[in-house]
Amino acid sequence: MALKPSIPKGTRDFGPQEVQKRNYIMSVLRERFETFGFQPIETPSFENLETLTGKYGDEGDQLIFRILRSGDFINKTNPIDWADKDAQKLAGQVADKALRYDLTVPFARFVVQHQNELAFPFKRYQIQQVWRADRPQKGRFREFFQCDADVVGSKSLWQEVELVLLYDQVFKRLSLPVTIRINNRKILAGIAEALDIEAHMGAFTVALDKLDKIGLEGVLEEMQAKGIPANATEQLAPILAQSETVSALSALLDSSEIGKIGLEELQFVQEQVQAAGITNTLQFDVTLARGLNYYTGAIFEVVANQVQMGSIGGGGRYDDLTGIFGLKNMSGIGISFGLDRIYLCLEELQLFPETTQALMDVIFFNFGDAEMAVAQSLILQLREKGISADFYPDNAKLKKQFDYAAKRGARYVAFLGEKEISAKEVIIKNQETGTQQNIPFSKLSDFFTAN
Amino acid sequence: MALKPSIPKGTRDFGPQEVQKRNYIMSVLRERFETFGFQPIETPSFENLETLTGKYGDEGDQLIFRILRSGDFINKTNPIDWADKDAQKLAGQVADKALRYDLTVPFARFVVQHQNELAFPFKRYQIQQVWRADRPQKGRFREFFQCDADVVGSKSLWQEVELVLLYDQVFKRLSLPVTIRINNRKILAGIAEALDIEAHMGAFTVALDKLDKIGLEGVLEEMQAKGIPANATEQLAPILAQSETVSALSALLDSSEIGKIGLEELQFVQEQVQAAGITNTLQFDVTLARGLNYYTGAIFEVVANQVQMGSIGGGGRYDDLTGIFGLKNMSGIGISFGLDRIYLCLEELQLFPETTQALMDVIFFNFGDAEMAVAQSLILQLREKGISADFYPDNAKLKKQFDYAAKRGARYVAFLGEKEISAKEVIIKNQETGTQQNIPFSKLSDFFTAN
Repeated sequence: MALKPSIPKGTRDFGPQEVQKRNYIMSVLRERFETFGFQPIETPSFENLETLTGKYGDEGDQLIFRILRSGDFINKTNPIDWADKDAQKLAGQVADKALRYDLTVPFARFVVQHQNELAFPFKRYQIQQVWRADRPQKGRFREFFQCDADVVGSKSLWQEVELVLLYDQVFKRLSLPVTIRINNRKILAGIAEALDIEAHMGAFTVALDKLDKIGLEGVLEEMQAKGIPANATEQLAPILAQSETVSALSALLDSSEIGKIGLEELQFVQEQVQAAGITNTLQFDVTLARGLNYYTGAIFEVVANQVQMGSIGGGGRYDDLTGIFGLKNMSGIGISFGLDRIYLCLEELQLFPETTQALMDVIFFNFGDAEMAVAQSLILQLREKGISADFYPDNAKLKKQFDYAAKRGARYVAFLGEKEISAKEVIIKNQETGTQQNIPFSKLSDFFTAN
Repeated sequence: MALKPSIPKGTRDFGPQEVQKRNYIMSVLRERFETFGFQPIETPSFENLETLTGKYGDEGDQLIFRILRSGDFINKTNPIDWADKDAQKLAGQVADKALRYDLTVPFARFVVQHQNELAFPFKRYQIQQVWRADRPQKGRFREFFQCDADVVGSKSLWQEVELVLLYDQVFKRLSLPVTIRINNRKILAGIAEALDIEAHMGAFTVALDKLDKIGLEGVLEEMQAKGIPANATEQLAPILAQSETVSALSALLDSSEIGKIGLEELQFVQEQVQAAGITNTLQFDVTLARGLNYYTGAIFEVVANQVQMGSIGGGGRYDDLTGIFGLKNMSGIGISFGLDRIYLCLEELQLFPETTQALMDVIFFNFGDAEMAVAQSLILQLREKGISADFYPDNAKLKKQFDYAAKRGARYVAFLGEKEISAKEVIIKNQETGTQQNIPFSKLSDFFTAN
């Protein structure tokens, strides 16, 4: 009995139209990455298990897809664990490789492994798939692309400026209006220092991260519940409420060295971005915290202005990404673009260019082998010029050929019968308007280049 | 202790230069595929285990990478198999998904699953990675790209013609001279019928496939050893020796219906390819057998004329690819391109275009924040025009900045100090020739567009 075909949950098939639209977004990213001097790298889909485990916390570890050892995967297992059926211990024994969970850890591994071949600061971009055994839900998949740009080996604040400009340019090219929110971990650390709640730094940022979901009241309540004193949350309230103004913050941070540095860094980035002619896109937001605790300086988040979608990009500065693989003092900064969400934004605002909509330029009808042989030579000429041209493979009824051309999304259909061949012309029909024209063989590629 | 970083055997990291060169090949493939009317699809990296097992023979099954079930992978195992430590049985119980082994089976699954959304004949191309737990060796990897173009749902011989033309055009665009060898399984079946060795068809093609390795004598010996009678191999010898001539073959096949059809099909393809202006590239070779037994008509193999590399492409007509998933009578034909081997050929013959060699157009030196702010605005103008422009992030010693520019592979470096800023010009140095020029701000992007 034949199987009823299906795919694993959380994965997707992509048809021609979707691939074309996704390729469009990726080509804009690649082009902008490269003009900004980022160079592409690619790493293997799976890494040694020990490269990945322990890097994403306990919860992340559970979500890593492990690959069963080939052949006898049992002979390297511990007999006691086997007898105990201890899945947790055995998972690391029956598998020795795992699918990439993100691009950050493989990138850190790459930098350390190839450090002698690389020019630092090393600017790399990477557009590859990652896999997570997350519970699939709307907009969350088990296989998806990440698109990351990072610079490692430079503490210069000009890199922060670069990455803001890169965000700005990519979204301008995509015609998608966005706001880039910026904050600095040093400002958050300074606030904690000034309010004498450094011991609660973790609880402070975790609560802050929930502002969108639970509101200011909720955040302050959670902070108090986690042991942050009431006098601290009282001072915080007005600052968080007016999250985009620096003045009150500036007074508060006067007592904190790290806080002052954070403000200076922020202002340098704001000034240079403004000098580059970008005025409204970048917005300071002291409530921006970002979950990942490896960030140490600037942090970013991008939201679309006209679509309710959550963040479509994010990133920040980190100081010790490669330390886990033995290379210390390699400061870096990176941003990432959320392909699936950007796709949904462009779809909702109808921003995909027309070139990604039409799938074919022209389909020639088939009136028999003799006619086809002539059609073939014309088709080859068109293709030579980069025009996508195809034909119906059999001398079938006209209706069938018309249906096919429509389903293929052809902009034009072409008729070439005996009569046309002796007149050395082709009848071209515009599929949208229905108008027909006789075009001489010699003008055919010009016709398509012009239309 | 920090891990010494490494990657799993049989996998590869790709640096910027390699990615750029691989992208070049893939972009030529994509462009030609699309002008020929092939549409891109993408399928998930892993499929349900039962979609893949049993499709590649026992040996292939062993080479499939299985993905461990998430969470408690033990609770669905058979306790007896567990107690027996039966790896073969348990492999299908602890894992429910597996990495794609080729693009053909996922394509068949895709066609059946989406049959109601597709226009037939369906022309698809697919450029994605596949994974095989093969023993790694020179040129054989555990992760590699396959690049396939197939048409399903058409028995028209014009498809055979199309695919030969597609091969021809792709390799012409890559400037790589090739020979496309063609044969037809019906001709081989006809030979077997005419010689009355149909019962030995398997042994016949398997032996034939080894011609390159063991020579004609060896092939004939192996055939006899496998039970093919001496009078048959005697008749075969002259035909195989003159593998490219049809005359002797034609006489032999006069007694075989299927053989005659095979010859007619071959001749139709040859004639139409010749009519399309391709004269020497396509060569009939009766000794071409191709290992895979799902081929039923034309078979192809491509070799580079000037590089010893084995086949860099292959394919053929098949009649029942989707039958395994319950969709009968869906004839198709497909070809595939070997990315890694094509890469090696282009490298050996130095055929990669210059654009894939240089990694950057220009790097600006850094003389401090005030100068950098001006440089930044010029850099943005250049990038706007698609010129890749970058800068050194710190005001470091000149030697360090020169070293960096050289390592980055920049074609030019740019100096912009106080003096240049007041004169509104940039000193541009050609890194290859060493010549310097002063270029006014207003002419800067013109300079790079022209050079």
